Order: sequence, then structure tokens, then C-alpha cells
Amino acid sequence: MFDMNLIQRGARLRRTPFFEATQRHGAKAYTVYNHMFFPVCFDDFEAEYRHLLEHVTLWDVSVERQVEITGPDAFTFTNLLTPRDLSKCAVGQGKYVVITADDGGIINDPVLLRLAENHFWLALADSDVLLWAQGVALNSGLRVKITEPDVSPLQIQGPKAKDVVQALFGDPVTKLRYYWFIETKLDGIPVVVTRTGWTGEVGYEVYLRDGSRGNELWQRIMDAGAPYNIKPTGPSDIRRIEAGILNWGADMTLENNVYEVGLERLVDEAKSGSYIGRDALARIRKEGVRRKLAGIEIEGARIEFNAVKWPVSAGGKAVGRVTSAIWSPRFQKNIGYAMVPVAQAVLGTTLQVSIPGAGERKATVVTMPFIDPTKEIPKS
Amino acid sequence: MFDMNLIQRGARLRRTPFFEATQRHGAKAYTVYNHMFFPVCFDDFEAEYRHLLEHVTLWDVSVERQVEITGPDAFTFTNLLTPRDLSKCAVGQGKYVVITADDGGIINDPVLLRLAENHFWLALADSDVLLWAQGVALNSGLRVKITEPDVSPLQIQGPKAKDVVQALFGDPVTKLRYYWFIETKLDGIPVVVTRTGWTGEVGYEVYLRDGSRGNELWQRIMDAGAPYNIKPTGPSDIRRIEAGILNWGADMTLENNVYEVGLERLVDEAKSGSYIGRDALARIRKEGVRRKLAGIEIEGARIEFNAVKWPVSAGGKAVGRVTSAIWSPRFQKNIGYAMVPVAQAVLGTTLQVSIPGAGERKATVVTMPFIDPTKEIPKS
Repeated sequence: MFDMNLIQRGARLRRTPFFEATQRHGAKAYTVYNHMFFPVCFDDFEAEYRHLLEHVTLWDVSVERQVEITGPDAFTFTNLLTPRDLSKCAVGQGKYVVITADDGGIINDPVLLRLAENHFWLALADSDVLLWAQGVALNSGLRVKITEPDVSPLQIQGPKAKDVVQALFGDPVTKLRYYWFIETKLDGIPVVVTRTGWTGEVGYEVYLRDGSRGNELWQRIMDAGAPYNIKPTGPSDIRRIEAGILNWGADMTLENNVYEVGLERLVDEAKSGSYIGRDALARIRKEGVRRKLAGIEIEGARIEFNAVKWPVSAGGKAVGRVTSAIWSPRFQKNIGYAMVPVAQAVLGTTLQVSIPGAGERKATVVTMPFIDPTKEIPKS
Repeated sequence: MFDMNLIQRGARLRRTPFFEATQRHGAKAYTVYNHMFFPVCFDDFEAEYRHLLEHVTLWDVSVERQVEITGPDAFTFTNLLTPRDLSKCAVGQGKYVVITADDGGIINDPVLLRLAENHFWLALADSDVLLWAQGVALNSGLRVKITEPDVSPLQIQGPKAKDVVQALFGDPVTKLRYYWFIETKLDGIPVVVTRTGWTGEVGYEVYLRDGSRGNELWQRIMDAGAPYNIKPTGPSDIRRIEAGILNWGADMTLENNVYEVGLERLVDEAKSGSYIGRDALARIRKEGVRRKLAGIEIEGARIEFNAVKWPVSAGGKAVGRVTSAIWSPRFQKNIGYAMVPVAQAVLGTTLQVSIPGAGERKATVVTMPFIDPTKEIPKS
């Protein structure tokens, strides 16, 4: 079994409600995300990827900590935090949003759920939006309560995911439209089930609302998934990069805005009223950006997933960095993203990528996502 | 060499300017702190502890990311963030402070440095105070700029630390009073040197102000320290617990206030004007707290450093949790802290601690710190 003692050093970092279950199933390693242990893999990364493409996977994403916003002004306040127009988000509906800083920088890219008129959750990427939101609320004059609730999501993803949630929850869940959710119970365990995920495959998330029942919920899902060959896994970076999904902290940070990273769809230009970052985003939109995140293919032999942001040059000049890059088994190609000046982000541009231990490689700017979800894709 | 690939998963987590140096010196493991890799140890924990007590250690604490606050209202703004009276902090002086939430909760416990009338750094524990401060600034009407500068500290700690900084910087540094600092250069490398640390031993911190020169600075310190047997190490939890030093995230969190964790000295009651959390802290002070962090000794054989917060009971009833506990080689005792109701925090109280894999142990509430700095202490 993997020895946590060295990464762990004391009780500063938290364990998820599913920690014991992930240990029981042989998690090989953990990373740290939102001050919490995050299981990275239970098997070889390519084996987990293939399982996700062909069967169904169970993934502990409790580290997507929630910020809960309630109170009489919760709608008004939450609508201030994001360029998306939340008046278009019904109760029972979710949205993929960016939380923006005053200068338009991306603080986080959570899935937002609207549980009631004035009741929101933000399922966070790896930054303390709880502190940001509490800071913003301080002088806002708005009556809101902002907390981290006892809520821990799991992802059920893959072509058999629908069969598993059908077995667990029946039609109300299988009929959910993309990004909608229901509140329900499973053997008395309170959960929220959403039609969301981080894989590009069909998938659901089950948000556990009682941390003391992690083991029970995990086992219940494993049992229901057994006929469909369900398997616990970590994140599939291969699959999410194929789908053009971005990872906050790597592919975008506080230093970037939505126009640089291709998330302009998350700005509702017609939204009424002010929100944080609105003026900055309007200015950036008008002036244009200087750099962009481009899809790239890197020539040559199989690369390992990049552990640092590899330097990118063009015509012998340093121009940017690779933010994520990995070997895609079904394309038999190295694919990824690079943050480069707009002139180098044009389709077909030739770049050079410097890979520690693997030398210089030629790369070409290509269309993202690598897999067009409307077209048939090669099976692995 | 330690394999980072599993903890690492992509380029989301950052490396410090001293990362290569720590790898060269054989860092055995890393944890994650402020979204960055933090070397945990280069040797056995007790060997590092003994080295710290007898010689001098070099410790990469770049993960203490800085929040830099500048602008015409920087003093007014920074003074809003903490219960300490910053009008008593001179330029060139530092203070150990708490950053408090509106409800008095402890957001972070940084070392604050005042670099100019309106220029502050906060050297952070593991929470995104950058986001908190930017959020607070938003509607404050104050003219401030809040950023994360390119600043990465190292700690030089132990009885020979003064010899090493004498060799590097001469008298201006060795004459520094506790918590004061100077800005200087070492072979052209811009640094700030402070008389601070996290060990309870004599020590200094060298804040590197140019991340591209990490290797150079590291090597320069190792060379100057060679005659004094300097050795790279990780944090010494044994020594810091002996000294009664708290670790944010374990011994105190956003759920705690200064009165619960014995940090009431960080509240200047006579401070004029309002600050965040002032009303809440006044109310808590008046009403009294319901729980307290107590020093404890745990009977029996050597324990391992607690990886989770162990349950504490009294008279058969669950009452609290151990936040940190470790074996002290020089006392030949297990020592630590427990958060318990005030009735159980009284000196001499008998508690029961439930240690996974080691059963129930009797514990007794004792005086903190375990080592009184004014008295002679046993040598290991």
C-alpha cells in the first residue's frame, strides 16, 4: 500500500469521506488539491483511460470543495461573482462558470448549482474561493452567508455511467439534461446528482451531503456498478485533454482571462448590471488579447505528461509555454496546449517545444478540442 | 531519487526556485503547500531534528508565498486585516500576525514585514490570502495594489545560524533584533534578511527577490555554511511542537479564534479604529471561549506524528481532537496539543487519546510550550 507518511506530515491536509474506500481499493498515490488528499490513480494511467472509454469509472472528487451562498441577497451576490448571467440559471440547473477578479483574471472555474432562488453551490478548482467570496461580501452591503458545507462529490463517468445511475436512482436521473441536477436520497443518504463531469464521456456526479456516510455511498455505487465493470480511478488527463478541457492552475491561472484561454462563451455580454471584472473584460474584448492558448500536436515518440510548463519557441525565439501535454493512445500522437502570442496561435504554425530529458521537438498548432464530439471518433 | 510523477500529475503545482537544489541534495519527499511543492525531509526526521539542535539547517520555505500590499492607502488597508496595531510596526520591522475573518476566525498567521510606510509583505501559511485581500479591497474605497511578488524565503536555523549569516552578510544582520530585517544583496542577488523562523532555535530567513537566482543563492549559503556543518532539511515538527509553535491548518483553522489557540497576544486591545473581526473578537473575549488548545503529554511508547486529528475523550465521553502530537527524543515523551472544552483544558486533567493502530492512551494536560525558552533545557 502507498505510504502517505511522507507527503502527509501531520494533520494539516484533510482526508475525504471516501479516503478509507480509496485505500481499500489500492489507490497508488495522492496529490493535494484544496488542502485535501486527492487520489491520483489505482492502476496504470492508460489502463484507467481505456476503462473510462469502454466501461464506467468511479472517481473521488471531494476535493472539489463547495462554497455555499445563502441569504436573502444570495442571487444578487452570486451574480456579481461571474460574467455568466445567472438569471438564466433555473433552480435545479447548473452552469460551468468562471469566477473573475477585478482585472478579469480567472480566480476559479467551478460548476455552479442553483439549489433554490437564493441558494448556490460552487464546486471549486484548486483555489480558496471561500476567502475571495467572504472578502467581497464584507463591504458589499448584501445579506449573504458564505460557508463550506459538508458536501463531497464523486464522479461516475463512461459509456456505462447511465446504466449505473439508472440502477441507483432510476429515471429521474437518467432523464436529466446536461448540467441539470436533482436532490434525492440513496438508502437514506442525502445526495445531489448532476449530469456533469470532467471527462468528455457521458457522466454524472453524486454530491454526498453527509461526510459520515462516505463508505456506505461508495460501496452502494460499487455494488450497483459491478455488472457494468465499474472501477475506481483517478482523473484521466489523457481523456480531458482530448476533449479540450482545461485544468485551472495549469492551463489557466489568475494571470489569464477567458479570451486568452478560449472560454469567452462563459461571458454573457448581454447580462444586465455590473459584476466583478466586467469593465476589464469589456476593455480586453475591445483591445484584443496578446496571447492565446493553442491546441498543439508534438511530433515524435510518446511523451510523459508534462510536470512543468515546457518552454516553447518559434523561429529560434522563446515565445511561450506548454501548459498540458500528453500521449493520446487512440490518436497515437502527443497532444496538448501551449500559451503563445496570438501570431503563433494560428492554425498550422510550427513551434519548437523543449522537453527536459527529451530534447527539442517540432510541434504544430491544431484545432481544439482534439475530439469533435459531433463526429465519430476512433476507438482505442 | 524520489519520484515526483505520481504526486505531480501535470504542471498544476509549482516548483520553488530552489527545487533543483533540493533534488540535487536528495530531498526524499515533498508535500504541497500554497499550490507549490514543499520539501519534507532529506534524512530521518530525528536526524534532522538533532542537526537543528546542534548545528545549522537550510530549509526551503518558498511555499510561504508573499502577498505584497502597496499604494497610497497600503498602511490603512493592511491595518484593517489584523488585530495587531501596525502603527507600532516600524519600517524595517516585522510582526507575527493573524489575519482575521469577520467572525474572528483565523484566516492565516503570516509574518508581516513593513518594507516602507506603504509597502507590506505577508509571508503566508497555507491559504489564499491573496484572494481574501483582493476581495476585501474591492469595495473598500482604498487605493491599494495587491499582488504575489517574486519572493521566495529560505530559513537558516540552529545554534550556528548566526555564524553562517555573519559569514554571508556581516554585522548588519547579526545585530538584527528579533523580527527586524534588512534589505541587501549577496553577490548582486537581491534579498531581504529577517531574524525569524519556525523552529524555536536561533534563526534567520533569507527572502530571495529574484526567482531566477535560486540555485546561486542556495549554493552561496551552503558554501558559507560548510564550516558549520550546514545541512538541508525539511520542517522540524518535533522542535516546533516542543516550542509550542502552531501549524495553521492543523492546530488552528478558519473555525478557530485567537482566544481558543492561545494567540491572544496578537490582539492589541488598545488599537484605534476598526479592523476586520474586531466586534467578533470583543464579543468572544467578553463571553469567553468554549474550547481551548491544551498542551498534552501522551503516555506510553513512542508514537508516530499524527496523520489525522485523533479523537480525545474524557470520562468515556468524546470531547475533542489531538491537532498535533509527536515523540520528543530529548524529553523521551510524546507531546502535542489537543482542542478540548475549557473544562478539560485545565492543567493536570486526564484525557484518553484514541490512536489508530495503537489503541487508547492516557494523556495529561500540561503547560505549553514544553520548553520554556527562559530556562535551561536538556540537550539531546
